[in-house]
Amino acid sequence: MRKLEDLQELISEAVEKLTFPGYPAELYEPITYILSLGGKRMRPALLLMACDLFGGDVDAAVPPALAIEVFHNFTLMHDDIMDNAPLRRGRTTVHERWNQNVGILSGDVMLIEGYKLMMQVEEHLLRPIMNIFNSTAVSVCEGQQIDMEFEQRNDTGIDEYLEMIRLKTAVVLGSALKIGALIGGADQQDAELLSVFGEQLGIAFQLQDDILDVYGNPEKFGKQVGGDIISNKKTYLLIKALERANEKQRQELDDLIALKQFDSTGKVAAVTALYDALEVRQHAEHTMQGYAEKAFVALDAINLPEAQKQYLRDFADGLLVREN
Amino acid sequence: MRKLEDLQELISEAVEKLTFPGYPAELYEPITYILSLGGKRMRPALLLMACDLFGGDVDAAVPPALAIEVFHNFTLMHDDIMDNAPLRRGRTTVHERWNQNVGILSGDVMLIEGYKLMMQVEEHLLRPIMNIFNSTAVSVCEGQQIDMEFEQRNDTGIDEYLEMIRLKTAVVLGSALKIGALIGGADQQDAELLSVFGEQLGIAFQLQDDILDVYGNPEKFGKQVGGDIISNKKTYLLIKALERANEKQRQELDDLIALKQFDSTGKVAAVTALYDALEVRQHAEHTMQGYAEKAFVALDAINLPEAQKQYLRDFADGLLVREN
Repeated sequence: MRKLEDLQELISEAVEKLTFPGYPAELYEPITYILSLGGKRMRPALLLMACDLFGGDVDAAVPPALAIEVFHNFTLMHDDIMDNAPLRRGRTTVHERWNQNVGILSGDVMLIEGYKLMMQVEEHLLRPIMNIFNSTAVSVCEGQQIDMEFEQRNDTGIDEYLEMIRLKTAVVLGSALKIGALIGGADQQDAELLSVFGEQLGIAFQLQDDILDVYGNPEKFGKQVGGDIISNKKTYLLIKALERANEKQRQELDDLIALKQFDSTGKVAAVTALYDALEVRQHAEHTMQGYAEKAFVALDAINLPEAQKQYLRDFADGLLVREN
Repeated sequence: MRKLEDLQELISEAVEKLTFPGYPAELYEPITYILSLGGKRMRPALLLMACDLFGGDVDAAVPPALAIEVFHNFTLMHDDIMDNAPLRRGRTTVHERWNQNVGILSGDVMLIEGYKLMMQVEEHLLRPIMNIFNSTAVSVCEGQQIDMEFEQRNDTGIDEYLEMIRLKTAVVLGSALKIGALIGGADQQDAELLSVFGEQLGIAFQLQDDILDVYGNPEKFGKQVGGDIISNKKTYLLIKALERANEKQRQELDDLIALKQFDSTGKVAAVTALYDALEVRQHAEHTMQGYAEKAFVALDAINLPEAQKQYLRDFADGLLVREN
């Protein structure tokens, strides 16, 4: 088994070698630009890892892995427009650096380039893999739409939230693993089990992200503590807190959310105190654990040698390690 | 051979029957909305016509034909955002009726839905047809980008303009015919010849559109005479006029283009007088005729019975009839 870091490195190098036509420049330069902003290349690396797990030819899986990365960056380019985001990974977003129309149209052609890359698979896998890619792409769009609607609503339920993060972020992890498994020679059942593993682990990972935003060690986590609280982001913690709050607590939370001018540290401390009183962290961890367990149940059922399964368990443990 | 109008009708009915998920509503309702705005359904009808020409099963070609229509409407949805257009076929555009983010994301999912429909072909045609679809989609994006850049430039050449309309509008006509031909059982060479026929005819048709805007009979043409002149649209006529103008004429044209407040009739008359003096209509018609001839040369070389070829000739003659 190749190390995950080596696979991430392999993808990074392949991304650097990706070239697009020179004309029209404003259509293609933004693609090269956004791909150059880096990132952990986790999705394509997972695709290669799955291929490797089943003894497949990792090099043959590089184009579809790149497809997943190009697709992911297409969603970032369009999401940044929709979210009006000035920065992406500390650098100017495409619609800010060029303009909004460039962001829309470059994103469109990126999605098509993703399809072109994804088609570089063996004949017998073309239709099944394109079907997975289609339904994954639809799912990400649905998740983004639901996420945007949440920002306008105050009655989001936990189940809706969990379905949103599944659609927006977890499905693509499962699909990357499934596509890699199929290329690696896995049968339909094992590929599907690996997909479930990835999807459930993806939801757990997203919940951990919500928890770490409030309770993580900022030095290890690498983000400002309470960023989600400051921006009133609808996370598992906030939705759960609103659900569990009594009238007085609900009023307190509503008031904190409604603040136009505030001291960040004070707001974070006040919201965190409410979270503590309402024990939302425990609820979030319990739910997260539930998804992790479902992931491990799927993993156990995969028809792979024990060493390969252990590799996946170690990977999951590394992902869900609590760094607080 | 089925009549083209019957094939357009068949497509219109199939479009009406297309259904999308109910949730999230803001993602899918705009798709149904823009598809309901009508249009001649020419692109998908051409796909069916090509299938029919080669004796194929027209019903089997309906999903890929719908793919072409869904794809076309995806480009309209995004183009309307980029052009800041309030109306499409006399009705509110998607980004105006909902909002811009809805227009971006619904458009994205429409492109994916187009792929899903295009994949509904026989196994041996899947890869070749998806390759055509990919390169067509890229071409339309490139054409749109170049078109947007033209609006910012004053030095556009005729060759660039012709390449732009080829990429933006003609390629998809050729591809629709090619895909239909392949589904109908045509061999690679005949499908390619039919594609050339469609592409060259598409360029000729676009040039005719430029001419009719100025010289067409408004009652038959159904558009305001001089609409392109009023909006300073860079058409073949304007580019050619700028190219052929002497210093004085160039100054006159530049002044007319720069007018902020003007009487429409007066501006149209003044620009048309310059076009007449510079004989740009004759140049446009000559160029248009050249593309039409290339279309007919390709048509003649197709291995089809004379009756089928005559059908295509009649179709082309009907498209290029001068209604002025």
